[in-house]
Amino acid sequence: MAPPHDEKAEIQVNEDSISQRSISNVLFIIAMQTEASPLVNKFQLTEDLDSVFPKGVPWVRYHGKYKDLSINIVCPGKDNTLGVDGVGTVSASLLTYASVQAFQPDIIINAGTAGGFKVFDLYGVGSRQAFYTPNLAKELSLKVGKLSTGDSLDMSTVDETAIHANDATVKDMEGAAVAYVADLLKVPVIFLKAVTDIIDGDKPTAEEFLQNLAAVTLALDQTVTQVVDFINGKSFSEI
Amino acid sequence: MAPPHDEKAEIQVNEDSISQRSISNVLFIIAMQTEASPLVNKFQLTEDLDSVFPKGVPWVRYHGKYKDLSINIVCPGKDNTLGVDGVGTVSASLLTYASVQAFQPDIIINAGTAGGFKVFDLYGVGSRQAFYTPNLAKELSLKVGKLSTGDSLDMSTVDETAIHANDATVKDMEGAAVAYVADLLKVPVIFLKAVTDIIDGDKPTAEEFLQNLAAVTLALDQTVTQVVDFINGKSFSEI
Repeated sequence: MAPPHDEKAEIQVNEDSISQRSISNVLFIIAMQTEASPLVNKFQLTEDLDSVFPKGVPWVRYHGKYKDLSINIVCPGKDNTLGVDGVGTVSASLLTYASVQAFQPDIIINAGTAGGFKVFDLYGVGSRQAFYTPNLAKELSLKVGKLSTGDSLDMSTVDETAIHANDATVKDMEGAAVAYVADLLKVPVIFLKAVTDIIDGDKPTAEEFLQNLAAVTLALDQTVTQVVDFINGKSFSEI
Repeated sequence: MAPPHDEKAEIQVNEDSISQRSISNVLFIIAMQTEASPLVNKFQLTEDLDSVFPKGVPWVRYHGKYKDLSINIVCPGKDNTLGVDGVGTVSASLLTYASVQAFQPDIIINAGTAGGFKVFDLYGVGSRQAFYTPNLAKELSLKVGKLSTGDSLDMSTVDETAIHANDATVKDMEGAAVAYVADLLKVPVIFLKAVTDIIDGDKPTAEEFLQNLAAVTLALDQTVTQVVDFINGKSFSEI
């Protein structure tokens, strides 16, 4: 009789070998072009005009080297029918899937603006599954919170109940879809969310959103740059 | 000065050439294994055990020849974490995207059970964009209706308002995601939905759902078979 196969030990070995590997290939999923543009400039990335994606899809890819890192930033682009940024879970999941297939990243970072609850003030960083980032959060003084994802900008009663039940403090429109695909394809993922509006505050969401968007986008871009600088040259076990 | 480019005429030529092409490669997107199994048997398809999909994804593919048609049936499979069928828009969109890339189908058919409103009784067939199927609907006495898609089994007040505003008569959990990807990748798509429960009726949804599921699945499978028999040997302009 063969001895029982020790799956747990094998998984442990796998995780150890991953955690020692240095991070060299970073994929950013960013829903809105206005959120991506400052980073494209900062990292001096170039747009891929001869797209690796299927013909006709509106997805946009920027890529290049920054320090020791190979960086891809992908955005869903303008919806073919409506001409607005393709926010939401379906386009985020497709874009994440196709990008992981094409670029085989070491890590995915989903960066963007999000709605927040009063209990929270500026940043939410949530890492899912095997990877969490205690050193990164400490070094950059980032707050760690739970993220909830929904496909509408305003919040319905049902959504609100679900969010409170899950003790989430930040709400976005893509995170859960990115997390789903990252888990499916076994790629570590980090979420960097800058809060644009306090959902359970007094002002209507759309108004708050526009008022804060510029300032929050700037803060997001500064933090993303710090995160990239921090990750550069490190292994998973060091972040 | 160059004469203005006549885009409309060019599109017309494209559509004419597509409509004369005979349909030989059909991709079925089916959310639940219990809906797919009778069709797998009927068309004598075999499961693809050495999957064309990425390692670790739960997606299931059955394929084979039936009459003159090459048929693929794909299901999202069991969710890796929860062990239940991977229903909903995110997994449906990913599965549709990956399957179109892998199999290059002439047409997508999203078949499954759905919720219905009182105004409607058994079937809803909705074709989107360029392709509609007047001959098929007439020949098989199928009812044509508008389809609305949501990620929850029960209906929230917000969903109900949106559905009524769009004059939809059938509600499913995948259709809009399949339609989105079909439109993105420019593949004609048909929806075949058998109604399991009357959402605005008296009985609670979950109870109705289970009571009717077996009977409705049988009806769905019979209709899918009729549709495949009808499509076999025809061009787009004939359906």
